[in-house]
Amino acid sequence: MTVSRDSVSRDSVSRDSVSRDRDTSLRERAGKVIPGGMYGHLSARRLSPNYPQFYARVQGARAWDVDGREFVDMMCSFGPMILGYQHEKVEQAAAAQRAQGDTQPGPGEAMVELAEILTGRVDHADWAMFGKNGSDATRLCLSAARAATGRRHVVASEHSYHGWLGWSNRFADGQAGRPDPETFRYTYNDLDSVRGAVEQADPAKVAAIFVSPFRHDAGHDQELVDHEFAKGVRALCDEIGAALVMDEVRAGFRLHHGSSWEPLGVKPDLSAWSKAIANGYPIAAALGTDRFREGVEQVFATGSFWYQAVPMAAAVATIRALKDENAIARMEAAGTRLREGIARQAEQHGVEVSQTGPVQIPNLSFAGDADFKKAMAFCGEAAAHGAILHPRHNWFLSSAHTDADIDRALEATDAAFRAVRSESGSS
Amino acid sequence: MTVSRDSVSRDSVSRDSVSRDRDTSLRERAGKVIPGGMYGHLSARRLSPNYPQFYARVQGARAWDVDGREFVDMMCSFGPMILGYQHEKVEQAAAAQRAQGDTQPGPGEAMVELAEILTGRVDHADWAMFGKNGSDATRLCLSAARAATGRRHVVASEHSYHGWLGWSNRFADGQAGRPDPETFRYTYNDLDSVRGAVEQADPAKVAAIFVSPFRHDAGHDQELVDHEFAKGVRALCDEIGAALVMDEVRAGFRLHHGSSWEPLGVKPDLSAWSKAIANGYPIAAALGTDRFREGVEQVFATGSFWYQAVPMAAAVATIRALKDENAIARMEAAGTRLREGIARQAEQHGVEVSQTGPVQIPNLSFAGDADFKKAMAFCGEAAAHGAILHPRHNWFLSSAHTDADIDRALEATDAAFRAVRSESGSS
Repeated sequence: MTVSRDSVSRDSVSRDSVSRDRDTSLRERAGKVIPGGMYGHLSARRLSPNYPQFYARVQGARAWDVDGREFVDMMCSFGPMILGYQHEKVEQAAAAQRAQGDTQPGPGEAMVELAEILTGRVDHADWAMFGKNGSDATRLCLSAARAATGRRHVVASEHSYHGWLGWSNRFADGQAGRPDPETFRYTYNDLDSVRGAVEQADPAKVAAIFVSPFRHDAGHDQELVDHEFAKGVRALCDEIGAALVMDEVRAGFRLHHGSSWEPLGVKPDLSAWSKAIANGYPIAAALGTDRFREGVEQVFATGSFWYQAVPMAAAVATIRALKDENAIARMEAAGTRLREGIARQAEQHGVEVSQTGPVQIPNLSFAGDADFKKAMAFCGEAAAHGAILHPRHNWFLSSAHTDADIDRALEATDAAFRAVRSESGSS
Repeated sequence: MTVSRDSVSRDSVSRDSVSRDRDTSLRERAGKVIPGGMYGHLSARRLSPNYPQFYARVQGARAWDVDGREFVDMMCSFGPMILGYQHEKVEQAAAAQRAQGDTQPGPGEAMVELAEILTGRVDHADWAMFGKNGSDATRLCLSAARAATGRRHVVASEHSYHGWLGWSNRFADGQAGRPDPETFRYTYNDLDSVRGAVEQADPAKVAAIFVSPFRHDAGHDQELVDHEFAKGVRALCDEIGAALVMDEVRAGFRLHHGSSWEPLGVKPDLSAWSKAIANGYPIAAALGTDRFREGVEQVFATGSFWYQAVPMAAAVATIRALKDENAIARMEAAGTRLREGIARQAEQHGVEVSQTGPVQIPNLSFAGDADFKKAMAFCGEAAAHGAILHPRHNWFLSSAHTDADIDRALEATDAAFRAVRSESGSS
């Protein structure tokens, strides 16, 4: 179903009068055949009912739900979209590959091209392996670290998300879940706490220390990395013979055209990539140095769809376009426009907010909002006014976000601030 | 690059004279930027050099390597291809969805349609969850079993493959790998050994017993399931309160339009699907009964690409086409033609072989070939003569394999038997 942009009016009165029948009906059907009606990070169940659960179409920085409502998408599908939906060069590269083959009896030439372009762009990378999801890539890095060091323990930041698998996610098995006994936790930007976790794990047993480019745990204000912390973790890994693993799944290629700490001069040994590297096509990559090559060759890891040629061709086109189209600067400009606009609105409405993290991966929180009531009200009202945001998770900018898109999002946040002010007034 | 079928001659003399430059050059480039030059089940490193590593194009039941050599593909990309590469209806459904959106801020209507069609086709299934790879689906089933039972131990057949993750694959961490202490092993078709494994695990701690539809461990002759074994495992699960989990990743929808043991009247509680369900598009599914619904709702599991609409639309089209085009009967007919042809050739050449498992997922082994030398020689010569087979892993038929394709494969196996005979004669 194609819905023209014009069929959905922008003003909130007619917005409210738009039928939600199709989304409601799909939610009812989903409730019967999908646990909880939906699962994971794209479940709208715990968000305001103003959010749609089901989408019909995407283009540029806009998305339309199954009832024809139009939204500026400030989540970029939680990161995968970075150049805009239906990006011409990426789609052309994908289509050309698809006409020849996608899942084949073996990989295509695109796999070699992609490994070459990644090892060329990312300064620590001597080799690449590919999977489908971020969880594949982080697990591959852990495998490489374990195989090369002969050790098993892993040290990671508390509250950090490195995928759904049990080594980092205690909720992987529901009520039978538990923290993995081989995983030890530190506090981001606190080097002493890393030393403490390493001691607890036993330095001689630590295979890897995982870091993210900055602190981006859901439900917390974000924190840029402290330069001394980055250098200190690198030195600690060298001291104990462990791998420094950078989880670039969320931030990769939004901050820098190489690994995110390259501007700091700090190189990880291994890094995990996914989300944005193919502008929405399903692919993940583990990159590493030659020190880990022999180890990772002993790992048996594979998947039926890990060698698909189309996502690899799309990734090559995406990574080229990111540089050719000056995407990072454009995301920074769009993110700055959004941050400044929200700051202005917050002041006008007399609402105290924190805006944290890089402007192209922004996070908004409200003072005195431990239960996220204000954030929920804000984002719910923004959804009603045509912008997809998230109350507990950081947002994402793309290079397709024009000034008009940001201004459209700011119209929605202006209405949302009014809602928060009345929520605050009534509490 | 499009290579016409006619550009590659069928006779082995001109085949040998075909340049292998492109594959050779890509292998050299890959050796620099991909560990071992390639990894996983699609690595050609341990196969005869007659195999290509890199493919340029696929169509129907044929594949062309990067040097333009044409092959009848008897591996179907290790299972994902089931209706033929570039199947019109599947590609049309995928293209129609792609024009609207693929990776979006939320799922599309296709997710509900797919969950409905799967729960409609598979008799034990009340609900469906989706991932990308078979490893996602088997791990989701384990999560559901653990969450619903509050237990952690898992019982699985020795040598069975349930994905690359550490709970079932001791080589996931290379030299630091080890059998998971929560996983206990039995022998397929030996009910006493299952009881033994359950006792060893402690019946009160067993969350799940994993089975495959038949024994299809790599490097072994296949074994169809014994009816009493299937019923016995079901009864044992009921007795101890564990989930019976069917791993349909390899065989699903090649034996039956529902779960593979439905003709035996034995229903699992949970089942894992991937490979063939979308004819090469990347998707996996965990299906379960209502008894496990509340448990799995407590599991946090997700992936950036788990909600892609295109593979879901492709899966809906594939599952419909499987029935509409009478695909299972066609695979059986093609598989029977292949099995009978190989049996005839083996007798003519005086070579003793075992052909085991369902004809549509066949396995060939040679008497007195513990080191797989004969199988390697056979498959290497078949590759040189234009058929992709595998010396240690079962093969796959598709409904696109015509009589002409099978006869073409049999020309290659005839040449391959001559090579085995001379290999045997020389040893």
